[in-house]
Amino acid sequence: MEKYDIIIIGAGPAGLTAGLYGGRQGNKVLLLEAKLAGGVGREVPAMENYPGFDIIAGVSLADKMKSQCEKNAQINELEKVNNIKKLENEEYNFEISTNNQSYLSKTIILATGSSHKHLNIKGEKEFVGRGVSYCATCDGMFFREKDVVMVGGGNSALQEAIYLSNIGCNVTIIHRRDKFRGEEFLQKRAKEKGIKTIMNSNVISINGETLVESVTIKDNKNNIKELKTNAIFISIGYDPHIELANKLNVNINENNYIITDKNQRTNVKYIYSAGDVTGGLNQWVVACSEGAIAATSAYEDIENQ
Amino acid sequence: MEKYDIIIIGAGPAGLTAGLYGGRQGNKVLLLEAKLAGGVGREVPAMENYPGFDIIAGVSLADKMKSQCEKNAQINELEKVNNIKKLENEEYNFEISTNNQSYLSKTIILATGSSHKHLNIKGEKEFVGRGVSYCATCDGMFFREKDVVMVGGGNSALQEAIYLSNIGCNVTIIHRRDKFRGEEFLQKRAKEKGIKTIMNSNVISINGETLVESVTIKDNKNNIKELKTNAIFISIGYDPHIELANKLNVNINENNYIITDKNQRTNVKYIYSAGDVTGGLNQWVVACSEGAIAATSAYEDIENQ
Repeated sequence: MEKYDIIIIGAGPAGLTAGLYGGRQGNKVLLLEAKLAGGVGREVPAMENYPGFDIIAGVSLADKMKSQCEKNAQINELEKVNNIKKLENEEYNFEISTNNQSYLSKTIILATGSSHKHLNIKGEKEFVGRGVSYCATCDGMFFREKDVVMVGGGNSALQEAIYLSNIGCNVTIIHRRDKFRGEEFLQKRAKEKGIKTIMNSNVISINGETLVESVTIKDNKNNIKELKTNAIFISIGYDPHIELANKLNVNINENNYIITDKNQRTNVKYIYSAGDVTGGLNQWVVACSEGAIAATSAYEDIENQ
Repeated sequence: MEKYDIIIIGAGPAGLTAGLYGGRQGNKVLLLEAKLAGGVGREVPAMENYPGFDIIAGVSLADKMKSQCEKNAQINELEKVNNIKKLENEEYNFEISTNNQSYLSKTIILATGSSHKHLNIKGEKEFVGRGVSYCATCDGMFFREKDVVMVGGGNSALQEAIYLSNIGCNVTIIHRRDKFRGEEFLQKRAKEKGIKTIMNSNVISINGETLVESVTIKDNKNNIKELKTNAIFISIGYDPHIELANKLNVNINENNYIITDKNQRTNVKYIYSAGDVTGGLNQWVVACSEGAIAATSAYEDIENQ
C-alpha cells in the first residue's frame, strides 16, 4: 500500500491550500477528490472579494490553486473515499479505501465541503437538467433571453442572479424573507441591473410538461400564484458532507458541521478538518486559511509523534 | 467630525481584507495606517504559499490588495492613531484621534500587526542603516557580493537568506537551536544554494568602526569566536502592537497577543481584532481570513445595534 504523512479528503480551496502547506513543510501528501479539484467553488461566476484578484471566476482561481498545489502534493481527482479505518499501535494511523485502491496515512484532513440544499418540492427532482439547476455558471447560457427565477437571499443567490442578468436572462429573485442576507453592494447592483424581486414568498411547486414552464409561489399571507418561467435556479445554502466524519466518531455540532479547535484539530487524534464542512463564513479565503492551519497542525503532530 | 461604521487601525493584509469585506457589506469604512498599506508583509521578497499566486513579492500583493480595498473603503496612509475614547450611550461608540484630526465610529477593528524583535545586543542600535537590517528586500542589494549574516530559524529567516543568496550575497545563517523551525522545503533550498549555517549559537555583539565589520558569536558550550561580515540581517520574530488595545482594556494573552473568539470579537463590545496582533500562524492568508471574519462580525453587530 502507498504510504503518506497526510491524506486530504477533498480538493476545494481548503484541501488545495492544506496540500500546498503540507507539501512545503516536507510532508508526503495525497489529495483524494471524488469530483474535480476546486469543489463547489468552481461554480462561482465571478468573485470580487478574494484578496489579490479584483475579479476572478471560481474555475480560474481553482485551476491556479490546483497547479500551485500539484508542485507540492499528489492530487487524485475522480477518486472517491469509501471508508477510513483507524489502526491501533501502528506507525500509520489510518487505512483509507477508495473506489481504486487503499492507502496508509499518519494523518487525515477532512476537507469534504458541502453540497447544495434542495427545496424538496414537487417537480424539483423531475426537472433537473430540464429547467431546474443549482449552478448558474454551468447552465445559465441555455436560458439566454428567456425568463428565469432565482431562489435564495444570500451572496451566492445575488451573485448568480447578476451573472444571469449579465448574460441576458430576464431574472426574478424569489426570497422567503423580507430582506436579503447578501451584501448591500450586491443588492444595489442587482437593482441597477433591473432584476425583479418577489419577497416573503416560497416556491411550492415546479410545473411543466417535458421542460419547466412555471413555478407556483405562496406568499406569507397564503396567497398562491403561478409565475411563467423557463428555468429555476436554486441557491439556498449547503449540506455539509459528514459521512466519513461520522464513521470516524468525529464530533459534529447541531447544524451538522464538524467541530474543530482553533488549530483545526478535531476530537480524534491525527484527524483535522477545514473549509465549508466546518461551518463559519463560507468564503474562499476562510477555507484557504483553515487549510493552511490544518496542515501546520498535522505537521507539528507528526513531528512530535 | 467625520463619521464611520467601521474604522480599521492598520492596513496590512488583515486590515485591507476587512476594508474590502466591510465596504462590500455596505458599511462606511475608513482604514488608518501609520506607515504604508501592506504592513511588514511588504518586505517579504518572494512568497510561494499565498493561494492563487505561484510566486509573488510581498509589495506586489500588498499593492493589489490596496487597490482592491480602495474600491470599497477609504485608506489614509501616514496617519497615526494616538488615542481611542469609548463613548457611552451615543450612536457612535468611539472617538478616534490621530496626528491629523478626530473621527467617530460605531466599531473598531484592531489590525495593528507587529514589529521586528530586536536582539538587544551591543552594536545593534548603533549600526542600524550601517550594516544592521531587519529587512532583506529593503537593504540586501547594498551587500551584493559581500558577506552577510542572517540571524533566525523560521520561515522568514530562511526566505530572506535565500533571497540574499539569489541576489549574490555570501550568506551564513546563525541560529540559536540545533534545528530550524522553517519549512523543510526552504531548508533544502537554502542548502542547495550553498548557504552556510552555524547552529546552537547566539550573536552577542556587533562590531566595527563606522560600518559593521564583524559579529561575535557564542555557542552553547560557551566557545566565543568572531566572524567577519559586512552586514547582519535579523529575523527572530515579532512584538505585537498592543498599545491601543491596552488603552481600551482589550484582553491580552501571556504572549502579548490580543485574545479574540472565533468570530474575531474581543472582550470589548464593538471592538474586533485580526492579523498578526492576534497571534497564531502569521501567514498572509490567515490574516486575510481573520480580516474578512472581523468585518462580517462588525457588520452583524451594527445591523443588530
